[in-house]
Amino acid sequence: MSKDKEISTQDTRSWLRLIRSEKVGPITFWQLLNRYGSAQHALDALTDHIQQGNHKYRLACEEDVEKELKAHQKKGFSLLTAFDPRFPQMLRSLPDCPPFISVYGQPDILNQPTLGIVGARNSSLNGRQFAERLATDLGKAGWKIASGLARGIDRYAHQGALATGTIAVIAGGVDVIYPPEHTDLYHAIAKTGAVISEMPLSLFPGASHFPRRNRLISGLSQGVIVIEAALKSGSLITARTALDQGRELFAVPGSPLDPRCKGANNLIRQGAGLVESAQDVLSMIEGPCVPCLRDEANKPYTPPLSLDWNTLETDVLLDLSPTPVSLDAIVQRHAVPPQTILTLMLEWELQGRIQRHPGNMVSRVY
Amino acid sequence: MSKDKEISTQDTRSWLRLIRSEKVGPITFWQLLNRYGSAQHALDALTDHIQQGNHKYRLACEEDVEKELKAHQKKGFSLLTAFDPRFPQMLRSLPDCPPFISVYGQPDILNQPTLGIVGARNSSLNGRQFAERLATDLGKAGWKIASGLARGIDRYAHQGALATGTIAVIAGGVDVIYPPEHTDLYHAIAKTGAVISEMPLSLFPGASHFPRRNRLISGLSQGVIVIEAALKSGSLITARTALDQGRELFAVPGSPLDPRCKGANNLIRQGAGLVESAQDVLSMIEGPCVPCLRDEANKPYTPPLSLDWNTLETDVLLDLSPTPVSLDAIVQRHAVPPQTILTLMLEWELQGRIQRHPGNMVSRVY
Repeated sequence: MSKDKEISTQDTRSWLRLIRSEKVGPITFWQLLNRYGSAQHALDALTDHIQQGNHKYRLACEEDVEKELKAHQKKGFSLLTAFDPRFPQMLRSLPDCPPFISVYGQPDILNQPTLGIVGARNSSLNGRQFAERLATDLGKAGWKIASGLARGIDRYAHQGALATGTIAVIAGGVDVIYPPEHTDLYHAIAKTGAVISEMPLSLFPGASHFPRRNRLISGLSQGVIVIEAALKSGSLITARTALDQGRELFAVPGSPLDPRCKGANNLIRQGAGLVESAQDVLSMIEGPCVPCLRDEANKPYTPPLSLDWNTLETDVLLDLSPTPVSLDAIVQRHAVPPQTILTLMLEWELQGRIQRHPGNMVSRVY
Repeated sequence: MSKDKEISTQDTRSWLRLIRSEKVGPITFWQLLNRYGSAQHALDALTDHIQQGNHKYRLACEEDVEKELKAHQKKGFSLLTAFDPRFPQMLRSLPDCPPFISVYGQPDILNQPTLGIVGARNSSLNGRQFAERLATDLGKAGWKIASGLARGIDRYAHQGALATGTIAVIAGGVDVIYPPEHTDLYHAIAKTGAVISEMPLSLFPGASHFPRRNRLISGLSQGVIVIEAALKSGSLITARTALDQGRELFAVPGSPLDPRCKGANNLIRQGAGLVESAQDVLSMIEGPCVPCLRDEANKPYTPPLSLDWNTLETDVLLDLSPTPVSLDAIVQRHAVPPQTILTLMLEWELQGRIQRHPGNMVSRVY
């Protein structure tokens, strides 16, 4: 990788500080980067903003950023920016591509053809056996297996694919083993595959982190296979992110009497490929689409979203008047992610061009 | 029912004798009836044919026909001809509509909206419970349930629908209870529903009778639901006849580890509606299509097949020459059922216009 494609050490620091700041998720991150040209400029703008009294944002502390970088080094984890050629190409196309991932294990596995396997934590013995066998068979056919290190189906999917390589995408920091009884599995995965996370080191995963993590399992994968998923389960969230991301979706059927199968059966009803064996998956999915690393690495990196900000600004400004209007209504009128509108509002608020009102309303200040 | 629509007692005898003759199945029956104008004329032609040395056909004995009619009366079974308004309208549209069915129980049920439920004899406890509940729920929703009185799924489908009415289509004679342990069920079905068969009384069912029977289960039904069917199972034959007959097809998914589910899962893969509850079926099928008995009964009965025999004769005769040709090749060239070509050949053989040769070949005699 040539030096000029690499972000500088200082850039790494400001990127990490920006993404670790409160209320800055991946989408906001890329929009701020796009809008202000660099993470440092975005941090400067946010600092101004905060000084003018907006306490919604709170920047990460520089010392914590320094600590996190050192801890990665000390523990032997890689911290890959989205610029890094070792960063998973499959994730780069996502609008909410994480700016960083922490990797424990072998980063090389992250750019190999991957299928996700997800399912119930309270899975049946049959479901587990099936997951393990499916992972082994797909592994032998050249696919890496991504899952979430959870109890049940996830565990057996990883286990079945240990020999050929598997990726555990975890919801907390990459150094936080959850559930703790998967400690041996966690280390075994890192030997031939990788454990990855977009979250800060030592973060213990809370309920909201799991759905967010799920988009990375499907994002890494060309297709996702759902085994034993109840209605309203986390696996169905992964199924939905898979569809949103244009990934193939497969599901393993099960008895209508078993509530753990209702979600998967429902996916089949809605068009997911019915899977009874690895062969079924292989016959339905196009051959592994290996990302062309070289080509991609030689191109300048383009942040996931690129907008004509001037046109958007003009359009959105027209929507505003001294009478407060709902931000939701503005978002609905424009074919851009809500975060984009919020970024604009942030800037205008900084510039004193708009005023916020209770109930998520805004008015224009002349 | 007006007298003139009814076939005469003598006609009943000749119909019954014709259909009970060797090598005369339903398709040949209707073709002979169409060709010769009446069953008696067809019997006369066959008699000539046999006297000229064709021993392929053997007419049923008149005494046996008499015995069968009397036995029906004695045992309280109805013998319905396809003319009878109580005969199931759904069967009339089939090219292989049986000319007669024997009915033990309530013939009225045969023209009510019906769904078929079929599945494995060696079904799981879950499969049985599911079949029973599904039959009960569909029964309450106004559907009669058709099945085959077999062990396993069939039994539980009948049982679940006893209160609302169920039809057992059996492979042997209507008085032959098979399997024998279903004797109580057999009589219970007849109380609120019907046991029917197209076969002669007292015939014990052989292997070949079951697939033939299956077409009547699907034929009677607007849709067929397959529960636990292995690959190459009888239930899949019923599924195929259902599709051939333009019936809706539904299947209940199951674990890929259970061989009893492979057939049903495969049907879903091929487009059968996925069923987890009666509600699923009801949402996928159009409301009961009740045959319009009155209208139909006032129309003169049209045998299932009606051909322009003169054109066909000319065409097929052109195919023949003094050099023997394969009958299969002739059948393939003409868009009519094989039995039609065979009926023509039978007639020409009677008239000495063709000669048969080994290997199913025929030549023209000038």
